[in-house]
This record gives sequence, C-alpha cells and structure tokens, in this order.
Amino acid sequence: MGALDGVTVERVSDRTFLMHLGGKIEVNATVPVKTRDDLSMAYTPGVARVSSAIHDDPEKAWSLTIKGNTVAVISDGTAVLGLGDIGPEAAMPVMEGKALLFKEFAGVDAFPLCLATKDPDGIVAFVRAVAPTFGAINLEDISAPRCFEIERRLRAELKIPVFHDDQHGTAIVLLAALMNALRVVEKRAEEVKVVVVGAGAAGVACTEIMLAHGVRNIIVCDVEGALDPGRPGLDPVRRALAARTNPTGGRGMANDLLAGADVLVGVSGPGAVSKAAVRSMAARPVVFAMANPEPEVRVEEVGDDVAIMATGRSDYPNQINNVLAFPGVFRGALDVRARTINEEMKLAAAQAIAGVIGDDELHADYIIPSVFNRDVVKAVAFAVSRAAEASGVARRPAPAST
Amino acid sequence: MGALDGVTVERVSDRTFLMHLGGKIEVNATVPVKTRDDLSMAYTPGVARVSSAIHDDPEKAWSLTIKGNTVAVISDGTAVLGLGDIGPEAAMPVMEGKALLFKEFAGVDAFPLCLATKDPDGIVAFVRAVAPTFGAINLEDISAPRCFEIERRLRAELKIPVFHDDQHGTAIVLLAALMNALRVVEKRAEEVKVVVVGAGAAGVACTEIMLAHGVRNIIVCDVEGALDPGRPGLDPVRRALAARTNPTGGRGMANDLLAGADVLVGVSGPGAVSKAAVRSMAARPVVFAMANPEPEVRVEEVGDDVAIMATGRSDYPNQINNVLAFPGVFRGALDVRARTINEEMKLAAAQAIAGVIGDDELHADYIIPSVFNRDVVKAVAFAVSRAAEASGVARRPAPAST
Repeated sequence: MGALDGVTVERVSDRTFLMHLGGKIEVNATVPVKTRDDLSMAYTPGVARVSSAIHDDPEKAWSLTIKGNTVAVISDGTAVLGLGDIGPEAAMPVMEGKALLFKEFAGVDAFPLCLATKDPDGIVAFVRAVAPTFGAINLEDISAPRCFEIERRLRAELKIPVFHDDQHGTAIVLLAALMNALRVVEKRAEEVKVVVVGAGAAGVACTEIMLAHGVRNIIVCDVEGALDPGRPGLDPVRRALAARTNPTGGRGMANDLLAGADVLVGVSGPGAVSKAAVRSMAARPVVFAMANPEPEVRVEEVGDDVAIMATGRSDYPNQINNVLAFPGVFRGALDVRARTINEEMKLAAAQAIAGVIGDDELHADYIIPSVFNRDVVKAVAFAVSRAAEASGVARRPAPAST
Repeated sequence: MGALDGVTVERVSDRTFLMHLGGKIEVNATVPVKTRDDLSMAYTPGVARVSSAIHDDPEKAWSLTIKGNTVAVISDGTAVLGLGDIGPEAAMPVMEGKALLFKEFAGVDAFPLCLATKDPDGIVAFVRAVAPTFGAINLEDISAPRCFEIERRLRAELKIPVFHDDQHGTAIVLLAALMNALRVVEKRAEEVKVVVVGAGAAGVACTEIMLAHGVRNIIVCDVEGALDPGRPGLDPVRRALAARTNPTGGRGMANDLLAGADVLVGVSGPGAVSKAAVRSMAARPVVFAMANPEPEVRVEEVGDDVAIMATGRSDYPNQINNVLAFPGVFRGALDVRARTINEEMKLAAAQAIAGVIGDDELHADYIIPSVFNRDVVKAVAFAVSRAAEASGVARRPAPAST
C-alpha cells in the first residue's frame, strides 16, 4: 500500500505508520439522529430543556452531559517520551494513544488537547477555561519544573481532579512494585535505604509516594549528586523534597550513594548508574531501572547480581508501566465524581495493583501484574473510589464491591 | 425508570432527559490494543517514531493524527439557542448535539469545548493554544459583538478554518433559500429590496452574504430602527455594515421599512414585525422568519398574504436549519485541508444547497431541501472543496466528483 486517503507513506511496509493513518481515536454518537423526532430531542428544540435544567443546577452536568465520563489529556509537548520538547503536533500520537488506552482499559472517554503554549500561566488559564467540559484533567508530558507549578495551581483552583500522570502514575506503579519486591526480599519499608536517581517529575513523585507509604531513608540525586537542603540553585519543589529526604546527610554522586542501599529507583536515563555501583548495594538488592526505552543499567549487566529487577520494558519481566495505574485511578475518581485525586487515593491504587498478585504467585520475576490483566483496573478503580469516599472528596458514594 | 447509573430523573417519562443521560457522544479507539504487539505500535515504544516523523515535518500531523478529520466546537455559553447567557455547563448538551450531527451527517469527528471565560482575549488565547489538535474550529453560541472580534482575530492568526456557525451557517442556508425563493417568484437578486430585521450575529452575516451574492438594496434594522452610517453608538462591525447597506437612506422602524419590500429576513424574535407590515410589502413577498422556536410573525397570521414563507421550525414547510450547511462546509474544508473558509466557499455552499432542488421540484413550499436529504452534504462538501481549491486556500486538490 503506497497511498491511502491521499497520503503517501514513505515506508510502505511500516505497520506502525499505517496504523496511525487518520489517527487512533474517533468521536461517535451514542444516540440516534435518524428521524425528525430524534433530532428534536438530541438538538433543537428539545435540548433547550436539558440546557435549562443544567443552568438551574450545574451539578446536573455530571449526569446529563459527557462530563461524568470524560477526561482531557493535556500536553504542551515539552517532555514527550524520551524525545523531549517536540511540540504539540508531534505529541498528538502519544496523547491519542493515551486516550485509546483510557477507553479500552477503563471505559473512560478521553480527548487529547495538545497546546501551542509552554507558558505556565497560559496552560493554567487554558485548563481553567476548559474545565467545565470535563470530569477530570490528565496532564501529560509537561517538562519539569513547570509541571509542578502548573499542577499545584490547577489543583488549588479546580473542583475536579488534576493528575500529572508522568509524576503520579509512575509513582503509583513504582510503589506497587516496591511493596511486592519487599515482600519477596523480606525487608520492611521503614528500614530500607532507597536511592532515587533522577529528580525530574517522576523522581519527585516516586519519592513523595514512598515517603507517604512510610519509607524513611531516601536519598534523591540528580546529575549534580545528592539533594540536600544546603545545595544552592534548587527550585522550590526540589528544595522542599531535599528537606524531607537524605536523613543521613549523604553526599556525592549516585554511584557513590548506592553503597549499602537496598533499593535503586532509576528515573533518569541509560548509563546513569554503573554495574559496579549496583554490586555495592546491600544484600538482596532491588533495582528499578525505569528509563525508557533504555534503562539506567541493563538487565544483562546486573541481572545476576540483584534479587529483583524491574524496568519500563515489555520484553523483560516486571514491566513498570503507567497503564497499570491511570485507567483505574481515573475510573475510580469519575465513578464517585471525586473533587481531587489525593494521597490516600494514590496509596490505595498502589496497594490494589500490588494486591492483584497473591502470595502463592509472587516471585522475583513476577512482582507486577501484566498490563493485560483485567483484574487490575477493577481493583484500582474500586480502591480509589473507596479511598475518595473515606477521605471526603467524593460527590457520591463508592460502589459496595468491585 | 427512576434511576439510571445512580442518577435520579425527576420526570421519569421524559424521553429527552433519558436520551441525555451520560451525554450524547463518546470517544472510541479506531485501532486495537488487545496484544503487546498492538500496544507497542499504538503506544510506546512504536509511537515515538510517528511523533518524530511529525516533529520533522509538522504537516504530517494532518495524516498521522486525528487532526485532519477533527473539529473543535467551542462555545462560552453566552448566546445559547433562545436561552441567552446560560454558561458553559448548560451549553454542553447543545455542543454535544452539534458534535453528533457533525459525525452523523458528514463523518466529521467533532469535540465540544465549553469555556469558563467570556473574555475575548481569553477565548482567542484558548483557541490559539488548542489549534494544533484540530483541523478546523467551529465557534458556536458566542454573543455579539464579542463574536465578531473573536472570529476576526482568530481568522487572521490561525492557518486552519475558523467559522462562527451562528453567523455563517445561518447565512449560507438563508442565501440558499433566497436563491430558490427568487426563482419561484421570478425576481432578480440585483433588483429586490430586502429588509433584515435583527442586527445580531446572524443578521450581520446574512446581510454580508446577500451583498456578496449581488443583492444591492438591503436595509438592516435593530430595535432602534434602520442602521445608517450616521447613527450614534454603533460598534465597528455594525457601522461598517451600515456604510454598505441602506442605499436609499431609509429611516424608521422595521414595520415602516417593510412597505414595498420584496424580502423580509427575520433574525430577531417573536413579534418583531406586524401582520400589517407584512401586508404592506411588494407583490409576491418572501418572508423568512427565522427566530426560533417562535418566528417573528406566525405562519397562521400571514401565510395567505405572502408568496413564500420559511421559518426555523420543522413543523412548517421550508425549514431554514444550519444542519443543511455546517456538516458539508466542514467536510469540504477538511477534505482539502483548507487554510480558511472564505466567501467563495460560503457562496458555493449556498449554491449547492439551492441546487439540490431541481426546477421540476421547486415550489413555494419546497425551496429548501430536507435536513435528512443525504444529497445535501455531498453537494455542499464537493462545492466547498472545489471553491477552496479555486480560491487558493486548499492544501491538497479537491476530489474530481462527488
């Protein structure tokens, strides 16, 4: 096939490009408009009564419009996969992919909105303006540190969830993996030493959720070495994180800090840690090398030296993939019309993902369920909706069971 | 049915409300994600190559994303149907209805975005930011005079069509109706006297398109009477219109001005013209009373006194309904990836709608085709795409035939 719909595809045998022709999602009607009667209900004049009812009580938008099941996937295209700042048009295939995963995995209608602005004020104003249309906002692939400010301001302003998936989706799955890894190696969260390599959006969020879970000894490092409160030039988010981590006052670079560590959380890039440094870790070390597509250290290099290894790749065991988290998190939040996605809901999601693997199945090469395990989204959605209700952010009750 | 999906419906037998539960559109995947292979093409890692290709050549977004078939339906909820400024949540059912008509009539994917801002600068900034995602912008139910400024600025800035349907969709169908009405009453556009009652968004656009078609003698009036260049307090849009209309210097109110007129174009509200004024019109008068749901003057009152009458209602002959125009206009514009929707394209659309009715079918009670006549969208799309190509605003050639 050399041309389809007028489009010439250079690599005629490229299945990936052919799959993308025309995009990956569509907008369909859920009601018929075949007759005048249909038209007079779905559009004028009948629709005027529905609009009036919502005008009288805006909460009715949750039931009488798409709002209650619809998420905006919003990106400025500045931190897309490993590609960096590639712009809004180039970000679209990723955001469409996200939207189709929302629908296929969780029945959530999601629509991608890729923006021609990188200005935090502009992005905040944009999301604030479009919020009436949606039940929740998924921020995606917005570079740090702007992503922190944008999310913080929107969370404070809006009465619907705002969730930066690169931070919190990654963090939830990481925590699920950590919970199960510690079950396998028989260590306690309160006692392990964790080194986080990478202090971008994912590194900050992974650290925050581990702290919330009860991990006490975490050292975060970036290319300049360990974060500590005295280091000059830290932005407010990282300065605050430095104040809550590194209780032993460790100094130096990632490879130095790994000596005696129980857990490595890599959210950086290939080559960020050395084989020798991994070998200097404590007994039964756990390595999460999440850089994609090339991990911080290769499985072939250190697999024999570690007790458990997980990566972002699907061709090795233990894939840490956001797809395990975001569909169920948003499903659960929408199910109870949550006002926000809070720490309790994120911790509940991690616990639910971890809990899908029973004690009899748990194994060093099976600490994370498959992305195609349909139990995951159900368990996550249920746990998130219950946690939303228990923490007082649900507009309506959680379901009684999955 | 008293409750559905947790929602209590007060009027349990109300089919219109039941139809709206959960909204009227959904977002679906067009590609499968059932296997790891699917996932690795539609999402990471395969999608990275597609994003890179678009980064290298942003024009590829037209073929490798949803952009080429997707329209944003954008409203601030300030001028919704006859309801006025009801806000973004209450506008959603109307915009969802619009989106489903786009899909059902023209195969165009449309997504509603209802905004929590009325500020022209804010709306312009919003649309400018979201433009990379879409192939065209449909502005909807934004009140005058802000709608004029917003559309003018966006048309100047963006390289995709920006079309305020309340203006131009209405104008296109009105012109189609006028063309066929003049065929029936055997009068020439260059010679008729037209009185436009109402100088809002639709009134301005109807006047503009009639001028472009060659009508010379048009008097526009609002609640204060005829527009003329000397009238104080006119905004720039209406002042410019006043300068190009009313060549005979007519003064007074609508009812006075109708004496001897050949055509009444009502884009105002019920009661805006009197039965006596309609009786004062020229021989074989044509009355378009488009206010909805109640026309400017009722068919029962003047039907016997006029040669042709058309309204916005579906329960009388000759329904002037935007649904005849916007699906085909956007279909045609997207088919050639048009940079804009210009006067040539609008005139071509009107001609196409009028042309669907053959000489042997044309009749005083059948000057406008049915909204369910599937020939209309095909004819309009073809005419619009050809006009786009001929006027130099198409990115690719128009189809050779419908």
